[in-house]
Amino acid sequence: MATSDVKLLGAWPSPFVNRVQIALNLKSIKYEFLEEQYGTKSELLLKSNPVHKKIPVLIHGDKPVCESLIIVQYIDEVWSFGPSIFPSDPYDAALGRFWAAYVDDKLLPMMMETRKAEGVEAKMAAFERLKEGLVVLEDAFAKCSKGKDFFGGDSIGYLDIAFGCCLGWIKASEKMMEVVLLDETKTPGLVGWAGRFCSHEAVKGTLPETEKLLEIAKRFQTNAKA
Amino acid sequence: MATSDVKLLGAWPSPFVNRVQIALNLKSIKYEFLEEQYGTKSELLLKSNPVHKKIPVLIHGDKPVCESLIIVQYIDEVWSFGPSIFPSDPYDAALGRFWAAYVDDKLLPMMMETRKAEGVEAKMAAFERLKEGLVVLEDAFAKCSKGKDFFGGDSIGYLDIAFGCCLGWIKASEKMMEVVLLDETKTPGLVGWAGRFCSHEAVKGTLPETEKLLEIAKRFQTNAKA
Repeated sequence: MATSDVKLLGAWPSPFVNRVQIALNLKSIKYEFLEEQYGTKSELLLKSNPVHKKIPVLIHGDKPVCESLIIVQYIDEVWSFGPSIFPSDPYDAALGRFWAAYVDDKLLPMMMETRKAEGVEAKMAAFERLKEGLVVLEDAFAKCSKGKDFFGGDSIGYLDIAFGCCLGWIKASEKMMEVVLLDETKTPGLVGWAGRFCSHEAVKGTLPETEKLLEIAKRFQTNAKA
Repeated sequence: MATSDVKLLGAWPSPFVNRVQIALNLKSIKYEFLEEQYGTKSELLLKSNPVHKKIPVLIHGDKPVCESLIIVQYIDEVWSFGPSIFPSDPYDAALGRFWAAYVDDKLLPMMMETRKAEGVEAKMAAFERLKEGLVVLEDAFAKCSKGKDFFGGDSIGYLDIAFGCCLGWIKASEKMMEVVLLDETKTPGLVGWAGRFCSHEAVKGTLPETEKLLEIAKRFQTNAKA
């Protein structure tokens, strides 16, 4: 379905922005992507998200919706036709929300720590903590997917979107630091899931390529040292 | 409606637990309150919330639901009869979720800062930041309530519950530090709303009395110094 009054304020390397893109793709909603330039904040962004001044912002008609996971829920509720992002069972929905919050409140800070840690020893310790955090999510995958392909069961759901958008940065970290974060021994479920998620029609072309993220990561490092 | 298979693991001074109590009251759901003792974690809590090991946990039948705002959403979805906690309009729902996240991610840390800050000057600066944070919520009240009694309009909704449960600790802070956090000049909407919220049938008897919270706060301080 074509929807001409949908705009997304974002930037392609942001996993939070990718979440919104995938949700819109799943619902086949056309939208205009307004790219925010790194290091600047447009007038439209400041006006649309005056509290946090952060991307992504979905502008639907004249209404701005902020915060990636809130936007994903909004998309599911507004365009209630097509594939459901949320399961109909309230307990499954609560589980999805719980683990999505785990991704944002636990895993993402653990990923940030691997970047901030200084010295090889501290960096490796941070990666070990992140790996342990991913093993916890492996258990969640078993519980949520119930033996099916995705956290959401037969199709991509809220938690798939919430965690899946971290995969680009996970792969970039693996390459940059020569570590393995997802492997067949400790996280076999997540390895299989990651392959299926990345090759899903709604995801393909949305998650940034590893090489491009590595360039961005180097730019971050240079700026941090400057 | 009587529902005998609902248990709530909690502690009376916790605003997060109070959120769940109010949501259950709104829906007229009877439940068994299992009080966790300060400084200990029961076997049932560790088993029900192994990731965070925190209250509140709602146990519905044999299914544990964790994280206060997720539990409130679960309650609204499972017991969909009676007063709705979420508005039916997706944009209003997104606004409620946005401001509830603001309460948890911005206001509550600001409240924590007022407790942690050492020395009168640092403490007063922390209170000033909290006051500014409350003024931001005053604007949100105008937008969400649209001139009606509550954030949720004519009746108590998600954001009323999310923020309302902080009122006990706000009042305790005002008394303990002899400051005014909500006043008729800068936050007149919130002052009126707070009165209506606290005297609502679903809230009365749930929010702890200020004197009792002051005792708890003193115990925290003593333990922190020990």
